[in-house]
Amino acid sequence: MATSPAPRLDARALAAQQRSIAVSEFFLKNRHLLGFDSPQRALLTAVKEAVDNALDACEEAGRLPEVWVEIDRVSRDVYRVAVEDDGPGIVEAQIARIFGKLLYGSKFHRLAQSRGQQGMGISAAGMYGQLTTGKPMRIVSRTGRRRPARELAISIDTAKNRPDIHAKRTLDDWHRPHGTRVEIELEATYQQGQHSVPLYLKLTAVANPHVTLHLRDPDGREVTWKRSVRKRPPRPARIRPHPHGVELGRLIAMLKASEAVHLGDFLQREFSQVGRTRAAQIIERADARLTPRSYCRRIAHRKAAALHRAIAETPIAAPPSRCVVPIGEAGIREGLAHELPARFYAVTTRKPAVYRGNPFVVEVGLAWGRREAPHVEVDENGHLREVDGEGPPRGAREPARLIRFANRVPLLYQQSHCAITKAVLDTSWRRYGLEQPAGAMPLGPLTLLVHVASVWVPFTSESKEALAAYPEIVREIGLGLRECGRKLARHLRHVRRLERELARRSEIERYVPHVAGALGEILHLSKARRSRLTARLDDLVEESRSVP
Amino acid sequence: MATSPAPRLDARALAAQQRSIAVSEFFLKNRHLLGFDSPQRALLTAVKEAVDNALDACEEAGRLPEVWVEIDRVSRDVYRVAVEDDGPGIVEAQIARIFGKLLYGSKFHRLAQSRGQQGMGISAAGMYGQLTTGKPMRIVSRTGRRRPARELAISIDTAKNRPDIHAKRTLDDWHRPHGTRVEIELEATYQQGQHSVPLYLKLTAVANPHVTLHLRDPDGREVTWKRSVRKRPPRPARIRPHPHGVELGRLIAMLKASEAVHLGDFLQREFSQVGRTRAAQIIERADARLTPRSYCRRIAHRKAAALHRAIAETPIAAPPSRCVVPIGEAGIREGLAHELPARFYAVTTRKPAVYRGNPFVVEVGLAWGRREAPHVEVDENGHLREVDGEGPPRGAREPARLIRFANRVPLLYQQSHCAITKAVLDTSWRRYGLEQPAGAMPLGPLTLLVHVASVWVPFTSESKEALAAYPEIVREIGLGLRECGRKLARHLRHVRRLERELARRSEIERYVPHVAGALGEILHLSKARRSRLTARLDDLVEESRSVP
Repeated sequence: MATSPAPRLDARALAAQQRSIAVSEFFLKNRHLLGFDSPQRALLTAVKEAVDNALDACEEAGRLPEVWVEIDRVSRDVYRVAVEDDGPGIVEAQIARIFGKLLYGSKFHRLAQSRGQQGMGISAAGMYGQLTTGKPMRIVSRTGRRRPARELAISIDTAKNRPDIHAKRTLDDWHRPHGTRVEIELEATYQQGQHSVPLYLKLTAVANPHVTLHLRDPDGREVTWKRSVRKRPPRPARIRPHPHGVELGRLIAMLKASEAVHLGDFLQREFSQVGRTRAAQIIERADARLTPRSYCRRIAHRKAAALHRAIAETPIAAPPSRCVVPIGEAGIREGLAHELPARFYAVTTRKPAVYRGNPFVVEVGLAWGRREAPHVEVDENGHLREVDGEGPPRGAREPARLIRFANRVPLLYQQSHCAITKAVLDTSWRRYGLEQPAGAMPLGPLTLLVHVASVWVPFTSESKEALAAYPEIVREIGLGLRECGRKLARHLRHVRRLERELARRSEIERYVPHVAGALGEILHLSKARRSRLTARLDDLVEESRSVP
Repeated sequence: MATSPAPRLDARALAAQQRSIAVSEFFLKNRHLLGFDSPQRALLTAVKEAVDNALDACEEAGRLPEVWVEIDRVSRDVYRVAVEDDGPGIVEAQIARIFGKLLYGSKFHRLAQSRGQQGMGISAAGMYGQLTTGKPMRIVSRTGRRRPARELAISIDTAKNRPDIHAKRTLDDWHRPHGTRVEIELEATYQQGQHSVPLYLKLTAVANPHVTLHLRDPDGREVTWKRSVRKRPPRPARIRPHPHGVELGRLIAMLKASEAVHLGDFLQREFSQVGRTRAAQIIERADARLTPRSYCRRIAHRKAAALHRAIAETPIAAPPSRCVVPIGEAGIREGLAHELPARFYAVTTRKPAVYRGNPFVVEVGLAWGRREAPHVEVDENGHLREVDGEGPPRGAREPARLIRFANRVPLLYQQSHCAITKAVLDTSWRRYGLEQPAGAMPLGPLTLLVHVASVWVPFTSESKEALAAYPEIVREIGLGLRECGRKLARHLRHVRRLERELARRSEIERYVPHVAGALGEILHLSKARRSRLTARLDDLVEESRSVP
């Protein structure tokens, strides 16, 4: 019998059951946390993780990224995803760990804006493939013309979170001088629509106009989204944490771990935006017995707490803007205008702000008018196309459409759970002339695009589909939305004034022929003179009430 | 300057930056994943993790749990949480790892219903305390009368995910013969209301009538929720995975790792509900070249895939019901009736079902009528009290109230993101006589209670506040809701028939005096006879239209 009874356990018996849990076991059992909770989402997540990595690698190597995505159907429920780039490649010694170990990577231990940050996504995709099909990942990588391409078959030893290498060989005739190709077989479903691979790639192209993307779908159809600019976005600088938002316990740990000996040095070296003067101010404010020459490692808990308070109370400049790279107002406007024809656009890129010591920047784009359907899809030419979805029936006043990005990556799932959505719902759109049911999206032919870029994006889960609602972030998004909302309100007021004006003028114009007719009778004017009079009266009306 | 430039990186330079990430570093940076994203939630999460552990330990040791929660204010933003139990205690060698290492525990590697499952919660609470106040956790534990109580001060070395022991000593005069006490100082806010500690404890008492809980709040007020039953719920049995829902890759890994030599043995030994006959059926269906005597380790990928399909196609009994322990219909009805007076109750405990090989059971309770406010709070005597919240104004038709539990633990956050909520919204409540706006909760004086118990609850994040929407789980919850909905509909039909009947009768009764008066005049009856006549006519109406 497969059911074991549950005996009573004393402390000793309980102790015998305690064990370490490998992080890979943990996420295998909780794979929905990583975005592998349904076959459709699993496919999208695998593509997304591989594409994000490819784009990051190309950009770090200073190359304009070009990425090929190929999706093949292997059997009824099984697809093979291949993602290939012409980036710098990966040295062989690292391949196994990058693809075969969770929590391994180059982006976690620094503060710099990148798509990946956890060192988890691509290995998790491989682990899901392995779980559902029993097949290892296949990786090909080449680091330069003079080196051969190497091919590895890798799976994860999930009980130990370490890579198993099944096969290695050299590919003498690989077609690229450098680059990486990842292939994963996994249980999946390929669908069109709101959560589709084409939509993800299309929106990636909108937020990354310097990138070229290719897709070959399971039916063999090919689409290319070509880059529209050949200029790379500036590479985001790495920074140290901003002192505002660093917790007391972290400050104490930093004091103990720093290479700086003295407190003054410590503050300047470990934090962003703290120079000698600012450091001296903080120390003076903190505690009479602390000086810039105090030894960091000897600062007791009470004094560290005073230092922590002093940091919070001292005004410190916002983080340098070059550590977060927005898409830019021109880029957003162009992306919106190119894909979603509308009557009016408003765009805002906010100044960088800080949450918990991490700089971030918010961008908002707004398109108004001509919207016909609640959802967008990608058509066979790679363009967005509006489609009806499960929303209210066509023709009814529809809720605004929201398109979300974090660090230039489109977010397709968990919209209702996202700080961006919260900020949209919290905004009083009535103030800007829109209808808005209580607690819901504003109504009307409106598309909102929100991008949050940060050196560390606080996602609500490891699947990186929604932002946690830190108050500073929700506030900044709200301010961006309000800026665009005010521009929309001005536009709507203008339009409505124009409409009223036109209505009034047509009112007057309606009477012009009668007035002309009456005058003509009184003055016994000829037909020709009468019509001249009408024309002159028309001109008069036109001149005196010129359109504002 | 604290900002470093970003150099172009080739494959070699990129490789040099690759590093392992300790799981504790990961969760420190992503502490919102664990439920530590705001000071109020941090306090509740710390209490919850400690209480869950205390209840699990007592029950595993076969004791009726009694738990003391004490919350003290240390400074403006800092509180000390202490949770103490009279459970079996923890042997000293395990204390440091249980409280000072993430992903360490006894509950992850088995399939059995318990409150904790990740081996992460209490260490995470300590890590948050350490991050925000710089103070280690204090643990006291004693495993029996003849052994001394030991006190340890522990923090986590977050870069390595291992415990740092700051101090150890023996407490000769600890007041309990056995048990454990945890103390954590953390940045927090103590509030009443929807997400409060008292509400969490109260709802814990509702779902665990065999438990006694004590609270001393920061103002020194004490509340006790005494157990209402002295019988322990049956201890959930541990089981092996159910064969339905085991993924192909996992099946292959199990074939390789099993102690069973032959396939027939393997199926019987590794899975729940598979005996000799069922195993033979599966093997026969799978592949002509497989027999019960085939060697597990030699089964190739193609045959394993055939075996996997055969398992899916073979009918296999539902998992044994004793592996999941519901609260029970009587318990739920009593809990609802005791705390939320209503006109009508309906309760359902469903049969166990399976998602991804994991048995689970769904329970639904429903209370209708007399509801006055959208939220509940706990009053000074520890009873639920209805309060107005941010919902629609009092008097308007209010949405139903939803109370969620998983493995007897109340879920207070992330309601909109939970499979339970999805199932409620997906149910057509109109069919049961209720109003329901599109995509929203049904309206009316309705409280819904839903409990999901499973050997492995799929939470949407490590903070364990919402269930992932696995289709099997949403479906079962939906069926439970519909069962209760049908009972409610019968009740409402009955009530409405009754109301119509009463309305009709009062209509007739209105004419009785007139008829009696007219007859009296025609027959020249005395006043006394007239009133006797009226009474007899009343009786006649009463008899002929008896209430259904």
